[in-house]
Amino acid sequence: MALIVQKYGGTSVANPERIRNVARRVARYKAMGHQIVVVVSAMSGETNRLIALAKEIMPEPDPRELDVMISTGEQVTIGLTALALMELGIKAKSYTGAQVKILTDAAHTKARILDIDNHNIKQDLNDGYVVVVAGFQGADEFGNTTTLGRGGSDTTGVALAATLKADECQIYTDVDGVYTTDPRVVPEARRLDKITFEEMLELASQGSKVLQIRSVEFAGKYKVKLRVLSSFEDEGDGTLITFEEANKDNNMEEPIISGIAFNRDEAKITVLGVPDTPGIAYQILGPIADANIDVDMIIQNTGADGVTDFSFTVHKNEMNKALAILRDKVQGFIKAREIIGDDRIAKVAVVGVGMRSHVGIASQMFRTLAEEGINIQMISTSEIKIAVVIEEKYMELAVRVLHKAFELEGK
Amino acid sequence: MALIVQKYGGTSVANPERIRNVARRVARYKAMGHQIVVVVSAMSGETNRLIALAKEIMPEPDPRELDVMISTGEQVTIGLTALALMELGIKAKSYTGAQVKILTDAAHTKARILDIDNHNIKQDLNDGYVVVVAGFQGADEFGNTTTLGRGGSDTTGVALAATLKADECQIYTDVDGVYTTDPRVVPEARRLDKITFEEMLELASQGSKVLQIRSVEFAGKYKVKLRVLSSFEDEGDGTLITFEEANKDNNMEEPIISGIAFNRDEAKITVLGVPDTPGIAYQILGPIADANIDVDMIIQNTGADGVTDFSFTVHKNEMNKALAILRDKVQGFIKAREIIGDDRIAKVAVVGVGMRSHVGIASQMFRTLAEEGINIQMISTSEIKIAVVIEEKYMELAVRVLHKAFELEGK
Repeated sequence: MALIVQKYGGTSVANPERIRNVARRVARYKAMGHQIVVVVSAMSGETNRLIALAKEIMPEPDPRELDVMISTGEQVTIGLTALALMELGIKAKSYTGAQVKILTDAAHTKARILDIDNHNIKQDLNDGYVVVVAGFQGADEFGNTTTLGRGGSDTTGVALAATLKADECQIYTDVDGVYTTDPRVVPEARRLDKITFEEMLELASQGSKVLQIRSVEFAGKYKVKLRVLSSFEDEGDGTLITFEEANKDNNMEEPIISGIAFNRDEAKITVLGVPDTPGIAYQILGPIADANIDVDMIIQNTGADGVTDFSFTVHKNEMNKALAILRDKVQGFIKAREIIGDDRIAKVAVVGVGMRSHVGIASQMFRTLAEEGINIQMISTSEIKIAVVIEEKYMELAVRVLHKAFELEGK
Repeated sequence: MALIVQKYGGTSVANPERIRNVARRVARYKAMGHQIVVVVSAMSGETNRLIALAKEIMPEPDPRELDVMISTGEQVTIGLTALALMELGIKAKSYTGAQVKILTDAAHTKARILDIDNHNIKQDLNDGYVVVVAGFQGADEFGNTTTLGRGGSDTTGVALAATLKADECQIYTDVDGVYTTDPRVVPEARRLDKITFEEMLELASQGSKVLQIRSVEFAGKYKVKLRVLSSFEDEGDGTLITFEEANKDNNMEEPIISGIAFNRDEAKITVLGVPDTPGIAYQILGPIADANIDVDMIIQNTGADGVTDFSFTVHKNEMNKALAILRDKVQGFIKAREIIGDDRIAKVAVVGVGMRSHVGIASQMFRTLAEEGINIQMISTSEIKIAVVIEEKYMELAVRVLHKAFELEGK
């Protein structure tokens, strides 16, 4: 008997028929003798519907009230899922995030989980219930409803698995695992049987939308065994996210590159002509962080004549907000010449634990892009990935040629 | 400066434009220096949509999970209403029933309010906020979400007004007050400037759908000044619900009959041929009450030959459930000859405090119906109303002729 947390995304619970499918899968696991906690997202489209409704009233909705509204999406799904289980004769009980209680900080629309009270869930599991928990949401210390931001349901699943010391956290989605890249862009993309947490982290952060990045961080931190599976197929073991250490012995067998990640959700902001003095990065990014805007890539070149240029990327939705902050609060203070925003960019990255022990990956990547005439605007590297920013219109082409260049299609 | 609770029903918050209208009215009251608590229902149609969704999964949805789902309706509206107020530059903050907290018993889908913690609301009002509270919902002692049943938002409004010792509880609806009867049935129906709590109670319980009966009971118990107004008109003072005592002196001026109530939501159940012995009413109605089915009229005639017939009415939706209970658990035990259900009935009542001191109201009512050939199936009386059950198809005719017979159209 194992304790399994199963998380189902919005497309997996998009309508009553799919919710019944979820219930049938849960019933099969329950029949094997497992204890099951189900975490569900809002029915697909529901969160966007609620956000649009809020924006009809207030173009930039107050975050506290927006959370009150959008948290209802998952609340409907937990009720429906519990009903579907009961209809199959299975004891089931739903919890909102606040009811669990999943304690978060007060950063509405992008809250972080601080603690989970698993007392009631454990009691219910021992009493034979399947426990259905609303993903994506929690409550702060004063009982205000909070949400964890997009993809937060994955985080809820992993956090519950961690606190309950679950044997496995299964993430059901509309793909049957993690691929070398998005099959919609490269039809030859191949499903990976397993992938390391670190690679997954890079793939997720680079825009491979299978798993939300914070959930992977969480899983790594608390050593949660994470598996990505399709909610539309009953066969297949999906992709297991492993700890890198487990593969050390047979590293020779592992491919150098695991996959190609990409995303077009970011915008580039460049601060031109800033004095090349200590503290400049903080003076630029401090006000951005204070406004709770996430920054991804950050590039600063060595300057000439005591001035330099400073670039970073933020989510496209936050570009105008970031530009306004920089122009209002920063530009005059640091005497920057100009502040430029560009939201027609894409980021493409090659990811692989294997590249640590292989040279030449970067040069092969740059040559491949150069051969197609694709200009590289920014470069950022880590031990297991090389990311570049290019013009958005070249994104699919770049992904395809890199996938081929690193021989990811065949096994 | 007054403290006013304003309750807006589903049609008053049916879409963003109407929610903006609500915000504008609240803003006007706020500008007059009043403290305002706003109680809102779900957007019209939303509760029914959610119930239908639940029934798609489970034809008789588990009440706990149904409450989890349908309580999201008001939760969306409080968020939208708070946003609409903020958009007008007014400080606003929303609360779900559980957040307030409105403590109820555990009778899901028809819970009763046990206590309200008004601490946070008082604090917010003193800090200059308009407080927006979700009607219709609360939480039991274990934090399970509960709902108060249809019309429960009125009860929330009155209960909040009572606990906050509000100066007035304003119920905004799609009519501009309480009428002598439904103007859709009798175009000559006249709006009443005021009406006693007792009359309102009878009118509400008899199906005049302006106010929910429990809210009127609550208001009477806690002496809350209640006013019914139109949310679609800015003029007019609506109908004030008064305590009867206030009118004692000028009773001579008051009309004998205040209005004609009617409803077609009930079904009649008759238990034929039961022994005319002590305890028979309890043996029949005990199991019905245990199943949480509300019973309205109850009639038992004196029997002949030691047997009698016993009739009562329940909501149409619960007729089959009640019939099943009687046939399974009661019929054999009390040796009843037959159990009959009839859902093609209507109830019509004349209501008025004045009838206490006037004879002949009943005979005038019965004569008026007889002149139209309308047969009376059941009669039930109280000090301030006479109600009859008739065949459903005669309902509108009965209401019209009674409205005319009691001269309610003119002033």
